[in-house]
Amino acid sequence: MPTQKFHYIDDIFCCHEVPLETIAEQAGTPSYVYSGDAIRENYRAYDRALAGLEHDIHYAVKANSSLGILSLLAEEGAGFDIVSGGELYRVLKAGGDPSRVVFSGVGKTSEELRYALEQEIGRFNCESDGELRLLRELAAQIGRKPEVSLRVNPDIDAETHPYIATGLREHKFGIGLAEAERIYRQAAELHPLRLNGIGCHIGSQIFNIGAFAEALQRVLELAGRLRGFGVPIEALDLGGGLGVEYETGKQSPSIADYGRMLCAALAGANFRLGIEPGRSIVGQAGVLLTRVLYRKAGEGKVFAIVDAAMNDLIRPALYRAHHEVLPVRRSGRPVELTDVVGPVCESGDFLAKGRAMPRAEPGDLLAIATTGAYGFVLSSNYNSRPRAAEALVEGGSVRIVRRREIWEDLIRGEVVCVQA
Amino acid sequence: MPTQKFHYIDDIFCCHEVPLETIAEQAGTPSYVYSGDAIRENYRAYDRALAGLEHDIHYAVKANSSLGILSLLAEEGAGFDIVSGGELYRVLKAGGDPSRVVFSGVGKTSEELRYALEQEIGRFNCESDGELRLLRELAAQIGRKPEVSLRVNPDIDAETHPYIATGLREHKFGIGLAEAERIYRQAAELHPLRLNGIGCHIGSQIFNIGAFAEALQRVLELAGRLRGFGVPIEALDLGGGLGVEYETGKQSPSIADYGRMLCAALAGANFRLGIEPGRSIVGQAGVLLTRVLYRKAGEGKVFAIVDAAMNDLIRPALYRAHHEVLPVRRSGRPVELTDVVGPVCESGDFLAKGRAMPRAEPGDLLAIATTGAYGFVLSSNYNSRPRAAEALVEGGSVRIVRRREIWEDLIRGEVVCVQA
Repeated sequence: MPTQKFHYIDDIFCCHEVPLETIAEQAGTPSYVYSGDAIRENYRAYDRALAGLEHDIHYAVKANSSLGILSLLAEEGAGFDIVSGGELYRVLKAGGDPSRVVFSGVGKTSEELRYALEQEIGRFNCESDGELRLLRELAAQIGRKPEVSLRVNPDIDAETHPYIATGLREHKFGIGLAEAERIYRQAAELHPLRLNGIGCHIGSQIFNIGAFAEALQRVLELAGRLRGFGVPIEALDLGGGLGVEYETGKQSPSIADYGRMLCAALAGANFRLGIEPGRSIVGQAGVLLTRVLYRKAGEGKVFAIVDAAMNDLIRPALYRAHHEVLPVRRSGRPVELTDVVGPVCESGDFLAKGRAMPRAEPGDLLAIATTGAYGFVLSSNYNSRPRAAEALVEGGSVRIVRRREIWEDLIRGEVVCVQA
Repeated sequence: MPTQKFHYIDDIFCCHEVPLETIAEQAGTPSYVYSGDAIRENYRAYDRALAGLEHDIHYAVKANSSLGILSLLAEEGAGFDIVSGGELYRVLKAGGDPSRVVFSGVGKTSEELRYALEQEIGRFNCESDGELRLLRELAAQIGRKPEVSLRVNPDIDAETHPYIATGLREHKFGIGLAEAERIYRQAAELHPLRLNGIGCHIGSQIFNIGAFAEALQRVLELAGRLRGFGVPIEALDLGGGLGVEYETGKQSPSIADYGRMLCAALAGANFRLGIEPGRSIVGQAGVLLTRVLYRKAGEGKVFAIVDAAMNDLIRPALYRAHHEVLPVRRSGRPVELTDVVGPVCESGDFLAKGRAMPRAEPGDLLAIATTGAYGFVLSSNYNSRPRAAEALVEGGSVRIVRRREIWEDLIRGEVVCVQA
């Protein structure tokens, strides 16, 4: 799905004004290509949409943790939603402000909690009683008084892929509303933790704004009850999850509409709102650029074998995700139904199946669209394939923000057991 | 599924005689632990089973490409089946003999073909007409006369997971039998390539030896016809794919039975047989060792949140694979139905669901069994999680064959775009 930042100019697919052919020469293939301008604009769209509220936008680092991207967002003034010590390390390297970091996730280790306490991050979103107790112990040890929210589980069906729905009772995430209320009412015992926020996150790639509204309603009810009991709830966190358009015609909800819903629901309620968008900031701002190695016509089947594979982009295999495939140079070649597949030795290695596209020839460049989120971050060295390069385009300039891995990278830290 | 190499001694789960608790102290968690002895024995079982035939065992590097493991197998005299330039690099680093290497895969790049030609590997398994032509051009350029097989597609239903079935007409792999025959009969035109072998590979994790027998029969028929036409077929390659037992009671076929089938089918036929076992050599020879971070009892659900996650082992999410979960220290605690999940922020991050196991407590060690194949090689840095350590046990000694990644490894090769 091309956004305005990825578009054809005279039959050549470009990022801004830069032909993707030029980027392929500079970065090689396969490479991820990101539009810095699109990322900045998406961030600003959230900021505008929430202008009527006291708010924090914490970019969800897990969607794309490129230092290049994080550094742009830090410059825009974004906060960051992290889920590991490694993500905090990245945010700090990229110039992010630790006081604007929230730490989410069900499995924080004591080393990670200690690191985050030492860096004095803005808030911990705790997901279990066990985690609260551990955090309290560590905070007391090193003399910190962190702000803490409980992530509650609102039991909302987000109607998305089961792997990325997170707000139902049967999920590992969050704390049930009843148990949460019990914990909040004993908040004083949790000293030195300052338990003054409520968080939730119902999933990812959600198209129905009503599901967010419903979750927020449940959180607001809880907040109201707790304030009634004297628990000083100041911050609400609605998580992320706004969907993006992967398939032409499947219109995603607008950031502006989402913002209007939030402003209306929270008007006059006197909470500070945090949200954690990830995919909707970077998803459409990236493409995976790949070159056709072979065209293979089997019996009734045509394959374009490309140099990107499931190790570069696992979303099609893992989530049955759809990504549009665009020729970087438009041709008048006849259209044929094509499976776009990679070199990895399993049938699960496909990027697109049965697509009507102009006949692909070896040497052609293709852009796999809307791969800015959950693309590179899930990439592996499967089949001993070096990971792709990442290029970031700002205005007319292209910067390699991560060099392509080389074979030496594959074996870093390994030793042989037997000397040859 | 513990093999004889992973077993309980006095209620402590051990690799050989070494308690996994000792390995956890040395390597930390999560870590993969491999039994070198099991790997050697599995390799030798294949070698014995094929003693009656001229044969080559090419270990399928993609299953587990640890330099430690490759070096053991090189010492045992194994050949290697590679699917990328990176795998060839690994084999050479581990002391493998290039003349005993076969290069498989649908998407070999010209750089990879050139590298393999320069290293004078033993054989190329070509998968398309386009690849043959490219290989021929490169071989002529640099003055090599490589031995080549076509990988034919026997159109056999291997009855396995669709992602790892590879022998049907609709798959990207191989060349249909009719087209293959046409190419072989023009083999003289392919000079300097020596097209003297036929390969096939019908998939992975196959339990029915009859499927292999059927594929071999089709290959033998083709070989017989080609010899009749004067095409000098010398080598047959049946690929890999023998299944392993992931779930207690689901008995896998024996290497000995598989060998008996091959010896009977090929008796007196005067071919050199190559096979490419991977999973059946390393699968049961490894476990993923992980520590419980939190026990979380939701409404009607119990979660053991452990420090290994889908980034370490993606098989449950990607293939809906089953792995047995074993407590490293047996306890008399009450059994409860438990989901074993990791810290990654999606519901797809699970290692096991609904398992009857003794109540897990924070600090407990668990072994995720039968993870020696397609475990570490598919691991990623998702959620900015450093990849696990790998330990190899030989006799009573433990060697860290890959150190745990550190945060610095996560950002290697990256740059920020904006100076803070």
